[in-house]
Amino acid sequence: MSCLKIAVAGLGTVGGQVVKRIIERGEKLSRRTGCCLQLVAAADVSKTARQRFVDTDINIYDDVLAMLDSEEFDVFVELIGGTSIAKKAVQKALAAGRDVVTANKEMLAKFGPEIFNMAAEKDCRIRFEASVGGSIPVVRTVREALVDAEFEAIYGIINGTCNYILSCMEEKGEVFSVALERAQQKGFAEADPTYDVEGDDSAHKIAVLASLAFGTPVPLESIYCEGIKRITPAIISDARRLGYRIKLLGIAKKTASGLDIRVHPTMVPLDSALAAVGNEYNAVYLESDPLGASMLYGKGAGGPATATAVIADLISLYQEPGLSSAPGYFADDSLTPIEEEKIKSRYYIRLNALDQPGVLAGVTRILGEKKISIETVIQHGRSADQEVPVILTTHRAREGNMRRAIEEIKKLPVIGDRPAVVRIEEELGEK
Amino acid sequence: MSCLKIAVAGLGTVGGQVVKRIIERGEKLSRRTGCCLQLVAAADVSKTARQRFVDTDINIYDDVLAMLDSEEFDVFVELIGGTSIAKKAVQKALAAGRDVVTANKEMLAKFGPEIFNMAAEKDCRIRFEASVGGSIPVVRTVREALVDAEFEAIYGIINGTCNYILSCMEEKGEVFSVALERAQQKGFAEADPTYDVEGDDSAHKIAVLASLAFGTPVPLESIYCEGIKRITPAIISDARRLGYRIKLLGIAKKTASGLDIRVHPTMVPLDSALAAVGNEYNAVYLESDPLGASMLYGKGAGGPATATAVIADLISLYQEPGLSSAPGYFADDSLTPIEEEKIKSRYYIRLNALDQPGVLAGVTRILGEKKISIETVIQHGRSADQEVPVILTTHRAREGNMRRAIEEIKKLPVIGDRPAVVRIEEELGEK
Repeated sequence: MSCLKIAVAGLGTVGGQVVKRIIERGEKLSRRTGCCLQLVAAADVSKTARQRFVDTDINIYDDVLAMLDSEEFDVFVELIGGTSIAKKAVQKALAAGRDVVTANKEMLAKFGPEIFNMAAEKDCRIRFEASVGGSIPVVRTVREALVDAEFEAIYGIINGTCNYILSCMEEKGEVFSVALERAQQKGFAEADPTYDVEGDDSAHKIAVLASLAFGTPVPLESIYCEGIKRITPAIISDARRLGYRIKLLGIAKKTASGLDIRVHPTMVPLDSALAAVGNEYNAVYLESDPLGASMLYGKGAGGPATATAVIADLISLYQEPGLSSAPGYFADDSLTPIEEEKIKSRYYIRLNALDQPGVLAGVTRILGEKKISIETVIQHGRSADQEVPVILTTHRAREGNMRRAIEEIKKLPVIGDRPAVVRIEEELGEK
Repeated sequence: MSCLKIAVAGLGTVGGQVVKRIIERGEKLSRRTGCCLQLVAAADVSKTARQRFVDTDINIYDDVLAMLDSEEFDVFVELIGGTSIAKKAVQKALAAGRDVVTANKEMLAKFGPEIFNMAAEKDCRIRFEASVGGSIPVVRTVREALVDAEFEAIYGIINGTCNYILSCMEEKGEVFSVALERAQQKGFAEADPTYDVEGDDSAHKIAVLASLAFGTPVPLESIYCEGIKRITPAIISDARRLGYRIKLLGIAKKTASGLDIRVHPTMVPLDSALAAVGNEYNAVYLESDPLGASMLYGKGAGGPATATAVIADLISLYQEPGLSSAPGYFADDSLTPIEEEKIKSRYYIRLNALDQPGVLAGVTRILGEKKISIETVIQHGRSADQEVPVILTTHRAREGNMRRAIEEIKKLPVIGDRPAVVRIEEELGEK
């Protein structure tokens, strides 16, 4: 039996576990699957990271490009992250005719078409299960298991950091900054949490998923992206009272006008499957014909769990399934992303307003002018000369109209801070 | 591009859809995946079933064995069901060196080792995604995506008929027979519902899944199997009061003493992921190292949805992934099924008892003698000379002890009907 020769770049949380598991479990995996995985080389800029593996048979490098020049291997495993060195290394590996396994959603979201074109030219394969949803097999489900389904919508809780923070805010009544600190202490958030909490990570992942499911390249600029920093305990408790829970969702829907794709905090019905996904867990909810609703749920991060996805990709390369690596080349239903302005949604709006006659009249007049129809209005308490919260939910309206309405509402003399706006996805409640 | 030549047996709910989808969507699938699926022949004993396809290019037979003798093809798709003709046909196809795709859980559960041995000898591949969970890709998730995980437990809602009936009983307060009739009207239950409601279908499916996940053959006789006919609205409302919902689960757990495998109505915590799976939906909840909990959810039946799983299997054969078809040959952690007697569980017991002094004392004495420790006791109402329900829940106890205790409790002069017993799976509530 000939072995699959592997070169790994990046020995951090995931890469370190990939190497460790292949060393410790290689024989077991070989008995189980008939595949032989052979680590020939590994690279990392960090001496500490390299140190862990100096006593093995693996050739260790500090420079990934030097490793690619010097070593003989079949598959390049890219777990560096980011888009500068990682992209250069992947292109170098493809140029040399090597297959690639990567977890790099940012690189795929930004340079997917370029990289997949190059792979197709060189007749190389790219596997990237670990790029979305950690251990959840969503990439192979979309590409392989559901290959005969027509996708209609994807709703993903695909950032464990944000889901953990929102769970803490809901369950413990914590404000964002306290919940973030807790997430950092637990190792669920980075020291610099920007990439996660601003929604960029989710945007990269929904771009990758949507390009697979809808067979069309998705330019990142076309994705409306809003993080969770503006969510407050008051908004969370309003949501609960209205029958919702707040989740940061990556959403991609096929509509008559094109691909509706966005990332934002979303109210989902309390009894929906996505509402039950707590803490650091991820889930991807798919709607397709003829399958209707399906969902995958599991750990979306963590070194060992994510490493299993990388190893499953390696084994699939050994076993040579021939499914084209290229998302965006299905070519049968090319969808253009809808402009942000034209996206339609239901909305929750929370205003702080002086409790004076005519305040609500002013707000409803503006909404009416913008063709936004109100579903419910809740006004809490009463207090002369003090601001009180006014909570509104609307029927489906255009994003552009809503933005213009909010700008005008902000200018009303009786309105306090910037109004809070959260989108509502009602149909998730249908089982 | 050479095509994959396909012969289909069984043109019923699933088989008819497989043929229809390949005819209507073959070109689209080919653009999408590079695979060409070519239907050469189809067989069904029913003239009505055959009639639908007489105007196509497909050679139509009434006798599957005659079709296998006369036709040239690469893959035999067995969708006949049952174990007599189906098994004979599959063996004939394998003997001729053909690959096989099947949805036949009964055949795999009863004759899996024999059939997989034959496939291995003939170097043929068997795919059977549609045999468990309809469109849910649980077979390929267990075999491929999670190939580097060590399974600890599987909990499956894998019979849509039973789940639909239990949902109706809970939501509409219907008794079993009324809910069954509703399921039959909706097309979710067969005219003869025995195979579903007695739990046999679930037992076949959990046998297939467990053999894959734990790498060991699972004799059907080793599976304790209890259906849902004894569940009453009273038990369902007790469950809710105790914080549970009742689901028919297929359970397979790795324990220190062996493989704990069974099918029975089970109380699962109301806030667990499985409790949220309603109506005809299926879900498989997996516990593994290092992934922790993961779950797959979706439509478990229906012609078009199940047909997509068959078609995905066909495409995977075209693309030649080489994963051994044989469950039970992983050989690294062979587990022996535990004897029913020794299985441990928590229990709910509902007794109808005359409200006389000493009744509870008699019951608790018997439980104590059998080393079964009581967690809660709820006694409803009081009524001289009339039976009142007594509800108990226990800590973990041995099945054998519980059965002996129930036999003795039944003999107490003050106890009415046969006590109702439902097992509780508490750990499903941990998220």
